[in-house]
Amino acid sequence: MIRKEDGAGGKYMKEFIERYILSRFDFREGEISLSDQDDAGDFKDYVLTADTYVVHPPVFPGGNIGKLAICGTSNDLAVMGARPSFMSLSLVIQEGFDTGIFEEILDEMKVWIEKTDTKILTGDTKVIDQNIGIIINTGGIGERNRFLEKNLSTVREYRSYPWRWIRDRGAGSGEAVVISGRIAEHGIAVLNAREEFDFQLNVRSDAYPVWLFFRKVLEKGGVTSAKDPTRGGIANALNEISEKSGVGMVIEEERIPLDDEVRGFCEALGLDPLSIANEGKVVFTVVDELADDILKVLRRNGQKHAEIIGYTTDEFPEVVIETSIGTRRILPPPVGDPIPRVC
Amino acid sequence: MIRKEDGAGGKYMKEFIERYILSRFDFREGEISLSDQDDAGDFKDYVLTADTYVVHPPVFPGGNIGKLAICGTSNDLAVMGARPSFMSLSLVIQEGFDTGIFEEILDEMKVWIEKTDTKILTGDTKVIDQNIGIIINTGGIGERNRFLEKNLSTVREYRSYPWRWIRDRGAGSGEAVVISGRIAEHGIAVLNAREEFDFQLNVRSDAYPVWLFFRKVLEKGGVTSAKDPTRGGIANALNEISEKSGVGMVIEEERIPLDDEVRGFCEALGLDPLSIANEGKVVFTVVDELADDILKVLRRNGQKHAEIIGYTTDEFPEVVIETSIGTRRILPPPVGDPIPRVC
Repeated sequence: MIRKEDGAGGKYMKEFIERYILSRFDFREGEISLSDQDDAGDFKDYVLTADTYVVHPPVFPGGNIGKLAICGTSNDLAVMGARPSFMSLSLVIQEGFDTGIFEEILDEMKVWIEKTDTKILTGDTKVIDQNIGIIINTGGIGERNRFLEKNLSTVREYRSYPWRWIRDRGAGSGEAVVISGRIAEHGIAVLNAREEFDFQLNVRSDAYPVWLFFRKVLEKGGVTSAKDPTRGGIANALNEISEKSGVGMVIEEERIPLDDEVRGFCEALGLDPLSIANEGKVVFTVVDELADDILKVLRRNGQKHAEIIGYTTDEFPEVVIETSIGTRRILPPPVGDPIPRVC
Repeated sequence: MIRKEDGAGGKYMKEFIERYILSRFDFREGEISLSDQDDAGDFKDYVLTADTYVVHPPVFPGGNIGKLAICGTSNDLAVMGARPSFMSLSLVIQEGFDTGIFEEILDEMKVWIEKTDTKILTGDTKVIDQNIGIIINTGGIGERNRFLEKNLSTVREYRSYPWRWIRDRGAGSGEAVVISGRIAEHGIAVLNAREEFDFQLNVRSDAYPVWLFFRKVLEKGGVTSAKDPTRGGIANALNEISEKSGVGMVIEEERIPLDDEVRGFCEALGLDPLSIANEGKVVFTVVDELADDILKVLRRNGQKHAEIIGYTTDEFPEVVIETSIGTRRILPPPVGDPIPRVC
């Protein structure tokens, strides 16, 4: 039987994909194989990604499923260093779904399609009578671009880097680990929008197309690995970078940007903000010499809570959290997402 | 409120797409605009398509949703004249879904991925607890290829043809209308697999990747327009070609290939086989001089029921069905699909 964890973005999903998908379909056309489980696959000068959004409820503080479907898919392209260029839009809608909400969803898509200068090339619509509300799948095609080339050439000034795209396996030791802003806000905003919750919170989803600021980072250069910390949060993203790159990490807990309300909400519910989904953030490693400059670039480009949260190391293989009083604990990859159906 | 017809592939779906989607997202990168509502959109030497499969039940005589997800998406590329090259695979699975059936679905995908020499570049998995069974979205990228170039150059020997791809608006008058085989078998096989039916039928879904034989047709050349007659059946496909190309059609009813069992089943249930979905057929127009040769190519390549079913005309704009006794009636575009959830 298929379990919820099989689609939750963590350790069990990785096993699920290995067992069912990679055993049958593993393939590499360009540089990235399906078994790399990176954010996109590549052919020629393009990367391809696809995501289905099943977020419940479809409208939440800070956005809706339409905004999410544009931002989330474009983010998977952006973290490869690719310019989000083209999309497919596939809708599955429940019969009887409110057309007012439907239009609100499409209007948000339009806003973010325009802001990212992405174009919808093709689409599909299905209407079913199961109780799903609305499910959106967006495929995305990203193109090589001058920001990526600039970043790759800068990285190569500092060390050898064998890849044509930014990979989640590209981190070396002695590099800075950067997060572009405050964490866990998407997951918490969606959770609190559900009927069973009624906390008075001002938290809004952080859904946002990271390309709009990450391209500035790439132009400065020096990024060696990147991920958008969605399902499984930064706990998952950091562990993926660490494991795939073969480097450990020391993360200073107090430097992780976290809104006080989110912190309080998580404490009250026993949730770990490190494993809660974000939809407008990038976690990345950058050659140490450029880390301070990169931080300035992020802050100048609207990411005022961006932080260098730690560094990579070859002394041990794990992701280790260091507290303000100097104690250390291993941050394991989450087995799933503590909040289902956030994206 | 969203209605079932909004996603049924017929006239209402066209209106739905115009009202909600094209008003916001219409765009053209290469030759094909979103408002053309063709089977795929193009960029550089590629076409992009995407489809969500919500077929119920997921396993039926002649195939399952996995086979359908590969064949259906690759067919949307093939009818543009493009070689199906790369795919994305997005799964939405109901929690508790049987892993045996899941593996059966994936195994069928593998068979057809290999037969079509298509590669999966990227994917996504979500697990939800709504009663959906399994929903699959496949995105597809098709490439320009020598069969397409050969066809285009042959068409241009006979008349001017302004397009780089095979379009559903490319038919001229005085051309032959061809169907690659017997119709309505997919829709009927799926319908009869539902719990509420128990007719003793041998009808199997025709799900099949048309590229495997259509490329031979393209190599012979002369194809001016093509569609895969899925939702809304050939009634929809013929009307789309007719309307978009600005030509009428005369279709000889008795030449439409139809299995006796399917005919009987449709008569018993009051269904019109012309508006029932196919998943392994192509309807196309071809310059008259080459029609007989093309028919031979189809029959030599396994499509033994292929037929020239009529011709295009500039005498009137409609699709007209001519019976064996010479009476004529207009075949209107279907408003929806008489059998929901067949693809």
